[in-house]
Amino acid sequence: MALGNISSALIVGLGLIGGSIALRLQECGLKVRGVTRSKGTLDAALERDAISGGSLVLDDEVGKADLIILAAPTRASIALITEVDHLARRGVILTDVCSSKRLIVGEMNTGVNRTRAVGGHPMAGRENGGIQNADAGLFEDAVWALSNTSTTDKEAANVCEKLVALCGARSLWVDPVEHDEAVAFVSHLPLLTSAALLLAAKEHAPRLAWSLASSGFRDSTRLASGPPEMGADLLITNAEGIRRASREFSETLEKIASMLEAGDVARLEGILRIATEQRAAIYGRRDCTV
Amino acid sequence: MALGNISSALIVGLGLIGGSIALRLQECGLKVRGVTRSKGTLDAALERDAISGGSLVLDDEVGKADLIILAAPTRASIALITEVDHLARRGVILTDVCSSKRLIVGEMNTGVNRTRAVGGHPMAGRENGGIQNADAGLFEDAVWALSNTSTTDKEAANVCEKLVALCGARSLWVDPVEHDEAVAFVSHLPLLTSAALLLAAKEHAPRLAWSLASSGFRDSTRLASGPPEMGADLLITNAEGIRRASREFSETLEKIASMLEAGDVARLEGILRIATEQRAAIYGRRDCTV
Repeated sequence: MALGNISSALIVGLGLIGGSIALRLQECGLKVRGVTRSKGTLDAALERDAISGGSLVLDDEVGKADLIILAAPTRASIALITEVDHLARRGVILTDVCSSKRLIVGEMNTGVNRTRAVGGHPMAGRENGGIQNADAGLFEDAVWALSNTSTTDKEAANVCEKLVALCGARSLWVDPVEHDEAVAFVSHLPLLTSAALLLAAKEHAPRLAWSLASSGFRDSTRLASGPPEMGADLLITNAEGIRRASREFSETLEKIASMLEAGDVARLEGILRIATEQRAAIYGRRDCTV
Repeated sequence: MALGNISSALIVGLGLIGGSIALRLQECGLKVRGVTRSKGTLDAALERDAISGGSLVLDDEVGKADLIILAAPTRASIALITEVDHLARRGVILTDVCSSKRLIVGEMNTGVNRTRAVGGHPMAGRENGGIQNADAGLFEDAVWALSNTSTTDKEAANVCEKLVALCGARSLWVDPVEHDEAVAFVSHLPLLTSAALLLAAKEHAPRLAWSLASSGFRDSTRLASGPPEMGADLLITNAEGIRRASREFSETLEKIASMLEAGDVARLEGILRIATEQRAAIYGRRDCTV
């Protein structure tokens, strides 16, 4: 068995992430069932063979599963924890895929009595969401953050690590607070700047700007292409971390702008060089094409 | 003849843009020569058949050309205008590819006596520059901004429009000041925010951030991957436009951050929706993949 003693997994929420995990686990021979609020999504998931069955009603499914993966939006996933824990068989493993960890791990620490909970966050996404864009290979080579909760034991940790490996990703155990501080800078703040770039240009740029916008602007604003309700949901659950990141970002931007205003080309070039080198250190010098 | 009476073109600067134009024009049967400061670049351009000949010395080449394209960095191109004009045969057409237009068109208006000058800016680029990444198809479907100068006549305008069409791009006649205001928002400001995202994270994020950075951060910072000297050069020639764009951007970011701080999910979702819709209006809802 690919996932220890787990023979049936339940995925709650069949969007891009939940749907992609479902597809991959079914490929690996696990029996996956799904719960979603939308009949259309349930049908599409069945049609794509992402799940072998499912329901629109949580109560129908939770009691049958050996492994439960919460893949609804963050606030919805948090709100489901006590109910899912209450309905689940004792000792079942419960994890999530939410992009902030402090609040949901806090809820797992206080609201879980029957299940063994592990926080999770696969660092993968796509511009176009939904079950129709789900892809069994979505997590290939991605980092998948995992967080201990008060009920995580060795077996639960092992099962989650195996789940990550089955998806082709790499486990990285993280502290929930440090995770949120980190993603504030590299994930949530870029969503904010993407939106602000679009809004500032819409309000203040000459109309000509839209004729001149090319691949650079497209890439710089890609994160703002996702569903606004998902964006607002994920930002609000990491408001504190983002606020700090946003302040540091604004100060940095102001510093660069003042070099520009002073006409200080040497310092401007110097600070751009640090940025370029930092990026090369993360992604390599020649890893991406337009 | 593909370009009116033009049989020989000279490209000054054989980087990604100059090299790509050279490749395309040679493909179309024009004789293209090049000037560059680097022997290695000249050899590479010859090797790739981007040019049929060239020199490291401007004086050797300028007098032979029917069409001269300045494709050096912006300040260098501006600095070359009077010299090139002085060396050129009378009536020759002179254009450029610089990403800001106010300063260079100003210089063309005052420094040109013998040539007929037209400002130009192809809206295309690539993360990896240099002659080695030059591509005859780089400008396919791109917008190519053109600006009248005091010496632009109908024939010069026609030749430049044909040059743009030969490269597979679309001509768009623009006012240099409006052009610079527009690209400040959609091109130069995104370079600034890319750099600031990298620098703020480098200075203030937990080290964990670099393990968690994925495709979203990569795309959001792509513009900061180019050579710092090129970045500083292009920013400094549009300092005024960028300063204004940067101020509007910061105010917008502050507005979104305050909604977040107030926990106002509805307003946050509303403002993200405007951004998402603006982006969809430019690039389409489903045009890009990760």
